Amino acid sequence: MRLDSAGLQVLSYQECMSLLGSCPIGRIVFTDRALPAVQPVNFCLDGEDIVIRTTAGSKLAAATRRTVVAFEVDEFDPAARTGWSVTVVGHARAVEDPAEAARLAGLPLTPWAPGTRDHFIVIAAEQVSGRRIDQHG
Amino acid sequence: MRLDSAGLQVLSYQECMSLLGSCPIGRIVFTDRALPAVQPVNFCLDGEDIVIRTTAGSKLAAATRRTVVAFEVDEFDPAARTGWSVTVVGHARAVEDPAEAARLAGLPLTPWAPGTRDHFIVIAAEQVSGRRIDQHG
Repeated sequence: MRLDSAGLQVLSYQECMSLLGSCPIGRIVFTDRALPAVQPVNFCLDGEDIVIRTTAGSKLAAATRRTVVAFEVDEFDPAARTGWSVTVVGHARAVEDPAEAARLAGLPLTPWAPGTRDHFIVIAAEQVSGRRIDQHG
Repeated sequence: MRLDSAGLQVLSYQECMSLLGSCPIGRIVFTDRALPAVQPVNFCLDGEDIVIRTTAGSKLAAATRRTVVAFEVDEFDPAARTGWSVTVVGHARAVEDPAEAARLAGLPLTPWAPGTRDHFIVIAAEQVSGRRIDQHG
């Protein structure tokens, strides 16, 4: 078990991807008008890519076009003071190829928010890191 | 009840601050070596300021010194597809005044991670926004 400089357990790449796949909600971190911004979204994995479904005109769609974003999932138990988090950093892109969009529309990814959401954002998991905090570790 | 362009309920400032105060864990969003970064932290409110406790030499302490950060808390129910999120944007500062640090040390804020954490970061809640998603709304 490897610990980082803060004393947290370092998760392996495989653990990180497995935890990513277990979570329906993550947080996309980007820049909005030169300020740090964060927005929770539901998502699913397509291989090792993160897929988000939104509307073409959304702030998220505009802000994540051809840029590097972070994406975070976590789960904590406040009573036990344990938990884990996984962060991905990578290029985000809007899906423009109709064939790719049609394929992604077949993923088990139903938007929670109302309205038609037929715009897909794909984030490549270029850097993946994860930590676990365990009071008994 | 006000809805935003994505059809989500817009929370009032008072609701946002009340939800912020109900959460032990939030996510601080900053820039690390020119890349978007996000890190979960436990925190508490001091009036309307967000207070985080870390080590003086931590990456978080270095990256959040005299800069604008975002801070996010949320809670979602994947089965019901409901939930809320609150995001604060504001200047972060390291507490350097020993009297202020001594006062903040008296807050109900015990770090989850191991080690001595006597460095305080304070985020001013300059912009506060929140959304709720409710399938019956």
